[in-house]
Amino acid sequence: MKLLKSNLSEKLIINKYLKKLNFKKKGTFNFENDGAYLELRNKNYKLTVTTDSISEDLDFFSYDDPKSIAQKITTVNLSDTFAMGALPHSYLLNLHLPNHINENWLNSFSNHLKKIQNKYGFYLLGGDLSKSNKLIVSSTFFGSIKKKLEIFQSKFNLYDDILITGNIGESKIGLEILKKKYSSDINLNQYFINKYLYPNPCDLGPLITNYVNSMKDISDGLIGDLTDMLNDKYGALINVNKIPLSVKTKKILNNQNNFRLVDLLNAGDDYELIIISSQKNRNKIFNIAKKNNINVTLIGKIISEKGIHFDSHLDMKNIKKFDHFS
Amino acid sequence: MKLLKSNLSEKLIINKYLKKLNFKKKGTFNFENDGAYLELRNKNYKLTVTTDSISEDLDFFSYDDPKSIAQKITTVNLSDTFAMGALPHSYLLNLHLPNHINENWLNSFSNHLKKIQNKYGFYLLGGDLSKSNKLIVSSTFFGSIKKKLEIFQSKFNLYDDILITGNIGESKIGLEILKKKYSSDINLNQYFINKYLYPNPCDLGPLITNYVNSMKDISDGLIGDLTDMLNDKYGALINVNKIPLSVKTKKILNNQNNFRLVDLLNAGDDYELIIISSQKNRNKIFNIAKKNNINVTLIGKIISEKGIHFDSHLDMKNIKKFDHFS
Repeated sequence: MKLLKSNLSEKLIINKYLKKLNFKKKGTFNFENDGAYLELRNKNYKLTVTTDSISEDLDFFSYDDPKSIAQKITTVNLSDTFAMGALPHSYLLNLHLPNHINENWLNSFSNHLKKIQNKYGFYLLGGDLSKSNKLIVSSTFFGSIKKKLEIFQSKFNLYDDILITGNIGESKIGLEILKKKYSSDINLNQYFINKYLYPNPCDLGPLITNYVNSMKDISDGLIGDLTDMLNDKYGALINVNKIPLSVKTKKILNNQNNFRLVDLLNAGDDYELIIISSQKNRNKIFNIAKKNNINVTLIGKIISEKGIHFDSHLDMKNIKKFDHFS
Repeated sequence: MKLLKSNLSEKLIINKYLKKLNFKKKGTFNFENDGAYLELRNKNYKLTVTTDSISEDLDFFSYDDPKSIAQKITTVNLSDTFAMGALPHSYLLNLHLPNHINENWLNSFSNHLKKIQNKYGFYLLGGDLSKSNKLIVSSTFFGSIKKKLEIFQSKFNLYDDILITGNIGESKIGLEILKKKYSSDINLNQYFINKYLYPNPCDLGPLITNYVNSMKDISDGLIGDLTDMLNDKYGALINVNKIPLSVKTKKILNNQNNFRLVDLLNAGDDYELIIISSQKNRNKIFNIAKKNNINVTLIGKIISEKGIHFDSHLDMKNIKKFDHFS
């Protein structure tokens, strides 16, 4: 672990807050080297690598609970790891810390990381620290997946199913509530704000690798991420009414003019999975999901017409103007 | 490759400036996935991982040539990789870009990265982009080393040799010249400024792995990095007159009151290697270095008395006050 200029003593930050996260794994050198070794025990597996950063004022607010920041940096990376069909193995943490970061902050942040590491079974391999005027947290996650597996984000066939896990839009509603300080039902507000502050990755990916053609996590909204998956060969036909929304989300959409379905599809850190798979594997995927208490919904299929199409004959351009509930 | 909010189009940055750096390696998915695969072809090798960040105003100036920034971010990481005895394999790039970054900047930055990649033989595996008010470049480097090798930074024996590569202090003099706008001999100034702006890693490490006990690169000055290597068992005795200085550095030290030897030992991004090895391997290391046109100097040995000691009986506390040339 390489540590640079920081306001707090680097040794203190490492010894008191970060060393507990290496789970005493040999390759970490207990953070006493500038580098680390990374080895998978099972030679039939290969490593996946994902990297993502979150920044103050862009992805969180400076006064956010450090637990929320720990939750977000791990979820963005775990979500990508699971979408590759991989299980998390270890990670690196690059912390750019402004002066206001104190020991209370570090304590809360590192304890929450440890909790998440224990939940999913991965450890901190190394990282670096530096001073910054804004808080930026970068992280690189390593996952393991069977060597023979090759899951591409854009490799599927005509008439394949398009499935998504969980519900869409809750984090986006939470963000809007926070920004606009909208309030009517305080309990409902808190529910959505928690969805924004404490997003969870969907860990179905590694369980269904044998039955999917493509997977991607939703981090920029369903439409944006599905667009990224579509290649120049095929398009997608989406059944708008099938898009899964929670009862609470439906309540918000029905009661409030400021929330439109289309906004929930065009943005939002859902961290649910878009799965594209052969129709013949549909029941297998549904069964595995059910066993693991994960909701999966069939929302459409791959078609020969390029672009995203909606069953009500609305194209993307139109649906952006379309205000379903106003 | 995951790309977030940036002032320039993300697709443009990836397609025009970053894709050329993936050398069309399969595991990169041509940057069309959120993640990558990382696999060593030879199963007798394992991966090393190092990560480091450089930030505007801390490690470089905003008006510095983008080539210098490319040189610095690769050198800090290559230097750690070589110090582990590993050969560079691939890397990730996390770019935090302020608004003033334009296409000229990206062109110059990415072309210089490509040049360095070609020199040492490694490719860009992935990364992410985000907006920032200051320019921050984080990078994670992967190297390969034989599985059976275990090189610790702090594992050596009594009376082991302490060797260093190259010359000490040139980058530090360059930084001081830049900061103090000191000028007497313009050619000499430019020489040292170039040492600061365009540091090179020492690639001897991977060639001598069988003959060393410990290695570390000098990124915080000889004294600081040697202190990090010393464990609670042994100390180091250094022969001050043996510390290698270039003719140009000696000229500066003799002529200028503002440069003291001790300052060159206590700071400076030398990116030379400190090698601790058994006396019996001394000639083998010297021979390999000579064949590769790398200077190696024996500057001291491991002793039983803890801490760093100097042959003129000056301890670290004293040498900090000691002004050899004033």
